[in-house]
Amino acid sequence: MPSLLIIAHGSRRAASNDEVRRLAEQVRAQPEQAYTHVEAAFLELAEPGIGDGLAALAAKGETEIVAFPYFLAAGTHVAQDIPKAIAGFSAAYPAVEVRVTPHLGASASLPATILNVAA
Amino acid sequence: MPSLLIIAHGSRRAASNDEVRRLAEQVRAQPEQAYTHVEAAFLELAEPGIGDGLAALAAKGETEIVAFPYFLAAGTHVAQDIPKAIAGFSAAYPAVEVRVTPHLGASASLPATILNVAA
Repeated sequence: MPSLLIIAHGSRRAASNDEVRRLAEQVRAQPEQAYTHVEAAFLELAEPGIGDGLAALAAKGETEIVAFPYFLAAGTHVAQDIPKAIAGFSAAYPAVEVRVTPHLGASASLPATILNVAA
Repeated sequence: MPSLLIIAHGSRRAASNDEVRRLAEQVRAQPEQAYTHVEAAFLELAEPGIGDGLAALAAKGETEIVAFPYFLAAGTHVAQDIPKAIAGFSAAYPAVEVRVTPHLGASASLPATILNVAA
């Protein structure tokens, strides 16, 4: 079974980073979820970084990782910075397969989620 | 029936703002959705601003508006800037009721959404 790495931007506000870590816990606690591990990592300003987050999963023996960009917009971070960080990891860990999903803002289920939130 | 205003941060990248406007269209197109209008507005860097977005709905005769902060973290924008902009509108339009929902990052359905995206 793969593991899931939720990649957030990271913030100078510790509370914002804790929100992301709590979100990872909530995903992990979903009854229907099937990932071995669910962890959070940060592009910048918070720990672990993307490479360290991926390496921590590899150190636990994970060979399949789903990387989910927890970003609303398809900007430079999603288009370039995250793929670059993952490529750096993959060069060092060729046996670990990392699959990057669409970012949150491009999720097909987002419109329905918004209707739920606003209801 | 109320209308829904999706409030995003706004970006210097026109494509990011267009992503938000397209999201508003997608929410509007959901078969089960029950809002009279679904529009996007921006805290900064893009048009319409929050006050203008609310006023445009009021000008269409709307008296009940659900304001949804399309933000991941509960930072200053969510805690202070958006409420302040809405308070400014409400002072000018006392007959229009504006209800602010939790921001996206605090949505109870977000963990399930993330599992959908990553699947």
